[in-house]
Amino acid sequence: MKAPNKIAHIGIAVKSLDHVLPFYTEQLGLKLLGKEEVASEQVRVAFLEIGESRIELLEPLSEESPIAKFIEKRGEGIHHIALDVDDVERRLVTLKENGVPLIHEKPKEGAHQAQIGFLHPKAAQGVLYELCQYPKDAVH
Amino acid sequence: MKAPNKIAHIGIAVKSLDHVLPFYTEQLGLKLLGKEEVASEQVRVAFLEIGESRIELLEPLSEESPIAKFIEKRGEGIHHIALDVDDVERRLVTLKENGVPLIHEKPKEGAHQAQIGFLHPKAAQGVLYELCQYPKDAVH
Repeated sequence: MKAPNKIAHIGIAVKSLDHVLPFYTEQLGLKLLGKEEVASEQVRVAFLEIGESRIELLEPLSEESPIAKFIEKRGEGIHHIALDVDDVERRLVTLKENGVPLIHEKPKEGAHQAQIGFLHPKAAQGVLYELCQYPKDAVH
Repeated sequence: MKAPNKIAHIGIAVKSLDHVLPFYTEQLGLKLLGKEEVASEQVRVAFLEIGESRIELLEPLSEESPIAKFIEKRGEGIHHIALDVDDVERRLVTLKENGVPLIHEKPKEGAHQAQIGFLHPKAAQGVLYELCQYPKDAVH
């Protein structure tokens, strides 16, 4: 299996973007790239640039949001690690063949036209990994 | 405050390196750069390359290890995010002046001759951040 290209982002569950953003921008000095609502996941997301990667802060918009459920169960904190790959569909097929537990067996569309798939956290002793494939010509 | 350079590494607490490494190398396809014991922290560490960053798997060597205590309290999972900076000492001084809670108010020596300092997880709503400064000419 070819190595993934890079860490696409680290997703962090927070109760309030507004409360936590000043720490990231003023104290750590990270650049805020933008904010966006993802209605399908019921989250508001803030994107911060860090080298070739991003930190994504995820605020739930309703109690039905997976992020709200995560915070209720585990508290605020790191939710997932997303790896940038060129071949998400093939990887999910191979992982399934190899018996790796998956949340998505086929890619679905994520933010910024990415094709994404989540592995099940059982696959990695509790760490939730996402695979992301971006369109070749995308500015993301 | 200047932006940090990149994610230096993501530290992940695991009960057993040997148990989890095949997932990282064979299923995700990450390159294992090496393993090392850090006696002062009572951990055995495996370093995996991912773009400009690393994933560090941390296995406790004794019950006194901070990683053993983390696993006992929270289970296996992501322990900290380390950011690569050029000015760890000055940053820790500034963060202290700004009232940001710190674990280390002055840098201490970490692995690979890095100067490191941990912020208190209260600073970032439960996320543990480390600042790492590597010697300019280091191969790390």
